Amino acid sequence: MFRSAAICMLMVALRGLLPAQAPPDSVPASSNTPGAEYPRIHSDLRVTFRVSAPSAQKVQLVTGSDDNGLGKGPLGMVKDEKGFWTVTVGPAVPGFHYYWLSVDGFAANDPGSQTFFGWNKDSSGIEIPEKGTGFYEAKDVPHGEVRVHWYYSNITAMWRRVYVYTPPGYDGARTRYPVLYLQHGSGECERSWSNQGRVNFILDNLIAGKKAMPMIVVMENGMVAPRSGGEPTGVAQGGPARGGAQRRNEAFADVVVKELIPTIDAAYRTLADQPHRAIAGLSMGAGQATQIGLGNIDKFSGVGSFSGGGIRDFDPKTSNNGIFADAAAFNRKVPVLWYGAGTAEAGRVSGGKAAVEAMNRAGIKAIWFESPGTSHEWQTWRKCLYDFAPRLFRGGATAGKKGG
Amino acid sequence: MFRSAAICMLMVALRGLLPAQAPPDSVPASSNTPGAEYPRIHSDLRVTFRVSAPSAQKVQLVTGSDDNGLGKGPLGMVKDEKGFWTVTVGPAVPGFHYYWLSVDGFAANDPGSQTFFGWNKDSSGIEIPEKGTGFYEAKDVPHGEVRVHWYYSNITAMWRRVYVYTPPGYDGARTRYPVLYLQHGSGECERSWSNQGRVNFILDNLIAGKKAMPMIVVMENGMVAPRSGGEPTGVAQGGPARGGAQRRNEAFADVVVKELIPTIDAAYRTLADQPHRAIAGLSMGAGQATQIGLGNIDKFSGVGSFSGGGIRDFDPKTSNNGIFADAAAFNRKVPVLWYGAGTAEAGRVSGGKAAVEAMNRAGIKAIWFESPGTSHEWQTWRKCLYDFAPRLFRGGATAGKKGG
Repeated sequence: MFRSAAICMLMVALRGLLPAQAPPDSVPASSNTPGAEYPRIHSDLRVTFRVSAPSAQKVQLVTGSDDNGLGKGPLGMVKDEKGFWTVTVGPAVPGFHYYWLSVDGFAANDPGSQTFFGWNKDSSGIEIPEKGTGFYEAKDVPHGEVRVHWYYSNITAMWRRVYVYTPPGYDGARTRYPVLYLQHGSGECERSWSNQGRVNFILDNLIAGKKAMPMIVVMENGMVAPRSGGEPTGVAQGGPARGGAQRRNEAFADVVVKELIPTIDAAYRTLADQPHRAIAGLSMGAGQATQIGLGNIDKFSGVGSFSGGGIRDFDPKTSNNGIFADAAAFNRKVPVLWYGAGTAEAGRVSGGKAAVEAMNRAGIKAIWFESPGTSHEWQTWRKCLYDFAPRLFRGGATAGKKGG
Repeated sequence: MFRSAAICMLMVALRGLLPAQAPPDSVPASSNTPGAEYPRIHSDLRVTFRVSAPSAQKVQLVTGSDDNGLGKGPLGMVKDEKGFWTVTVGPAVPGFHYYWLSVDGFAANDPGSQTFFGWNKDSSGIEIPEKGTGFYEAKDVPHGEVRVHWYYSNITAMWRRVYVYTPPGYDGARTRYPVLYLQHGSGECERSWSNQGRVNFILDNLIAGKKAMPMIVVMENGMVAPRSGGEPTGVAQGGPARGGAQRRNEAFADVVVKELIPTIDAAYRTLADQPHRAIAGLSMGAGQATQIGLGNIDKFSGVGSFSGGGIRDFDPKTSNNGIFADAAAFNRKVPVLWYGAGTAEAGRVSGGKAAVEAMNRAGIKAIWFESPGTSHEWQTWRKCLYDFAPRLFRGGATAGKKGG
């Protein structure tokens, strides 16, 4: 009894050391570092951020996107007598949002948050739960793995790190699998689709529900110039190549076609042919996916553009070197040509939808998808993947065939 | 010609936007974010840190350890007229060092650095190269993979993430492999051994040189209490369990023995017996490894303590429930009992060495290892692993045997 009472008193004393009485009806974000009480998410999806910075003159919350409900522009936090700075914002749009703090003008991460590589740096991020859907959560279904695979690239003269999702049951089976090449966005990296995107849980759940073919997913950094001063050791990450997006994509296409695909086909039990290979990406990665995919339709039968641009001034006869000129032939060759965006990213919706409609008028069976209420953020891209992946590799008998 | 000249002029103009003339004879650290020019490492291993914080009143460099050559205590940085704060320190001890900044008293990461989970948060880190050794670098040898594997733990009522190194050639082979369970230190996580420790490159190089048996390495978070408010989804990370280290280790032992080992033996082609199972860890993980390993010598034939404590008041008759009482029997059962530390962590050296000597006097073939000049940091633990791993699983005929 005495001991319990002493522990109880100790706990009460310790509680006094906690930053403050936690707001009722709120829980720490699942994206927090272990044990961090803040940021906290309220039941109405408002979010309270709170950090200790007794000596700072000005602390602000900076959100990576201004259309996710967290607020626009740097948001002032208020200091209490103990030196804690607090702000409550929202309600937030469900999904994953990058954010950071401005401490006397310096962009600093929230020590209460895990970091996620975005905005070309490791940034804080907050996961806002979406009620009524669990398609990107860990469930009691068979789980695949995400493998960190290193390979040497002669084109970029560096060791490159690629993340590879293998579906549940890959080990121990002798089956060969189709492959989706899946690219992140600008300022992100090869970890982003598994960390922020939850690609593994999305595929695990789709496969368990027999909604998608079991597939391998390959996530590459996509940056093609050796970083300045970088050594080909440790965590290899390419810096941005010089030149515009198109030139960068061409250089990356070279890596994908000449090095990455052969590497993956050698290392994994893939179905190494065009009907069983697709490519998709988000934002900058959508540009890569469409440029590489539609530029190599002998290699890819599925192409997905998540929050990318549409094809400008689409002309079925001349666009993309005339691959659309024979619509029926194109539809047979590339049965999945898919464009999507969140309805809160207005420009991408109008541009993409118009391009798809123009394609449809020309007989191309391009697909248009909208994620309601989400913006240029990961919730859009999770939902894009969830709609896109089930459409892939439906060619029939050869998918999932046994191989040696 | 005109275009080249224009590009050249543009480059010169862009260079003017760089923070400053880079110090001669220095290169960006390999641990920097892509394209970040600072921190820079000089040829004599001094390091220049530099960040932009025009509105801050005081910016300091904070090093995670005060015996790695980066300096002791928060180190003042000097502001120039453009708002860049700079400090040059060192020469640094080679290896990986955690650090961060204090910006007007707020602990902030360096935006030029990648982050590494340490000190219970994502911290900046700098990799100082060691001349004349490359045992932890990516080399032109066959590479294994590090797999992110999720499993549900009933004991902790959460999805847990475990990192698993599989050796080169694992896929496609039918061989079964011995398993090393390898734990990180306090404030770190299941990613630490692959991110900071380079476990995969160390094993790749040892295996390629035929210095170590091909083995599977399993890296678990090791924290056993569900985090407050955390949901069993997303990136699951346990918070610290209540109670002292011993009690925490007991709880983790329960997870290891009842859940983790069966999970790994079911998911991977392991040699699932005592002669082919070892456990090691660093610092806090050394405590886990010795407590779990020596507490379950029917399950582990190798035990490694990297910068851990020795056994206090070692008594061959009574210590650890008398497992050492019959020295010859213990040596047969646990052929590798290994303790090591860096010579710059004086307390761990004297304590560990004395304990090993006491064991040796009692006929126990415990091994003592010292890493010259390194402290309670990753360079010590990389070198510990490099000495420890080759000693494992030398039992003979059964190691590497074919299996179904």
